[in-house]
Amino acid sequence: MKLPEYQDVEQAHDRIRPYIQKTPVLSSRGINELLEGDFYFKCENFQKVGAFKFRGAINAIMSLSEDQAQRGVVTHSSGNHAAALCLAARIRGIPAYIAMPRTAPEIKKTAVEGYGGIITFCEPTMDSREQTKEKIVAETGAAFIPPYNHFDIVCGQGTAAKELIEEAGKLDMILAPVGGGGLMSGTAITARSLLPDAKPIAVEPAGADDAYRSLQAGHIIPSVKPDTIADGLLTSLGELTFAIIRDKVHEIVTVSEEGIITAMRMIWERMKIVVEPSGAVPLAAIIENKVEYKGLRTGLILSGGNVDLGNLPFT
Amino acid sequence: MKLPEYQDVEQAHDRIRPYIQKTPVLSSRGINELLEGDFYFKCENFQKVGAFKFRGAINAIMSLSEDQAQRGVVTHSSGNHAAALCLAARIRGIPAYIAMPRTAPEIKKTAVEGYGGIITFCEPTMDSREQTKEKIVAETGAAFIPPYNHFDIVCGQGTAAKELIEEAGKLDMILAPVGGGGLMSGTAITARSLLPDAKPIAVEPAGADDAYRSLQAGHIIPSVKPDTIADGLLTSLGELTFAIIRDKVHEIVTVSEEGIITAMRMIWERMKIVVEPSGAVPLAAIIENKVEYKGLRTGLILSGGNVDLGNLPFT
Repeated sequence: MKLPEYQDVEQAHDRIRPYIQKTPVLSSRGINELLEGDFYFKCENFQKVGAFKFRGAINAIMSLSEDQAQRGVVTHSSGNHAAALCLAARIRGIPAYIAMPRTAPEIKKTAVEGYGGIITFCEPTMDSREQTKEKIVAETGAAFIPPYNHFDIVCGQGTAAKELIEEAGKLDMILAPVGGGGLMSGTAITARSLLPDAKPIAVEPAGADDAYRSLQAGHIIPSVKPDTIADGLLTSLGELTFAIIRDKVHEIVTVSEEGIITAMRMIWERMKIVVEPSGAVPLAAIIENKVEYKGLRTGLILSGGNVDLGNLPFT
Repeated sequence: MKLPEYQDVEQAHDRIRPYIQKTPVLSSRGINELLEGDFYFKCENFQKVGAFKFRGAINAIMSLSEDQAQRGVVTHSSGNHAAALCLAARIRGIPAYIAMPRTAPEIKKTAVEGYGGIITFCEPTMDSREQTKEKIVAETGAAFIPPYNHFDIVCGQGTAAKELIEEAGKLDMILAPVGGGGLMSGTAITARSLLPDAKPIAVEPAGADDAYRSLQAGHIIPSVKPDTIADGLLTSLGELTFAIIRDKVHEIVTVSEEGIITAMRMIWERMKIVVEPSGAVPLAAIIENKVEYKGLRTGLILSGGNVDLGNLPFT
């Protein structure tokens, strides 16, 4: 298994720069004063399709040979990765096939269709999704692009931390959420290379703490019945992302549901930006004092901004 | 009555530049495609205290003589203007007195106190607010800074359109919401001077259409029992703002509550930013086809982003 290095992230950045948004790095005087910290938020909620996922997807698609590309791409994620893959495929002018459970929310179907994706419905089990994906591969020859456990995906996601560091300068630590580990892996590779003294820290909801337990155990423990509002962080680590995170991440901490909602509300109210629960997870670690941050310069990756406005957790 | 001219807006801008946020002008490919338009949003939701009101307040306060300033300032608004005045006063190091109805929402009291304002509670009638304000003036000698019907306030608010035009370049029209008319007056003065061929257009909720009716009638018709979600636009025009708007605004249009909520949702979902109902009113005029915009470059002023997240209109 070949692990990505920072030069792979650099190459990915050169490859995808014409297609991605260079999202802003924002600070909030209000949040800095309230929490007595010095925070730099990398706003991937402003990325195309509303999440960092577009970086990995466009990198994977632009890395395909012309022959491979013409046969299209396929995935069985139904969330931000699927939308990102469809948009990236449309940009390259190739088909994107999505195996999606019949039970997926209407909003996800609409998003994928809106980006020109070709949906094949399946049963809402991992087996059925896997089989449906395999069937599409057999019929079309499409390249399977998984949501996180993939060399090119990790390299693409690492470009968010690269832009953050290039803009914010020296940071003492960088916090990112961890679900499948694609963003965290890319963040850690980039941080360790550009800022050897900075700590890459992974933050996970306590209600979906499979990555935390995996790192403690020294092997991947699958996510079983995760229960968290952070719906982007339900998945388990893959072999690739586990290996990178184990080697490169300084520490992994968990946060409560209450902490996530408080962080989300703070970002909406103080920064006037829309961030999804998963994107608020790093700030929850600050609010819950899971890391030392006073007197330090802290980077946080706001991973995305796709929420159902009709179903918000605020009261 | 001396009407402000564009050079007064320019002077205001020089005066307040060290204190205000130069807020971004954002465009959204998604909204442009959806509505087949070319839109430039001036994001005053990112202004200090979360609304354009800070521009006028800091301009009024920085325009006071040293003698006047030392006696402080007073107002009887309880919304964004009060918060803006308190912060501006704190920056100049002078007291800000706020006459606030006992019934004001806790969130507004907290905001004013958070910015160091000195609250005197009164009854929730205009008479009581006026009397309380007069009493404070008599006791302290504080300068009364009303929320919109004031030369320096209008000039300060005009700096938002100035920055918009300086960044976006030639626009064919500029839409702003109208409540008391401070923002609309400043916008119209600036637009008429910098872009003589562009149309300044005022947009008002149909449920609070006193400005619309005032312009039809040729004299100020007070706002009586306004009924709209756009809680920043409940007030009546003043003599100064009426005179400016009558002379300089190309057209005034009204929008429905449904249109305001649709516009607000579109901005939150597509642009990932938090905007208050009043700030979504200009886009509602586009969505409801109240103005011709196809093939034109349209500027819109997103006036603010202060909302109660526990009480949103989305379902």
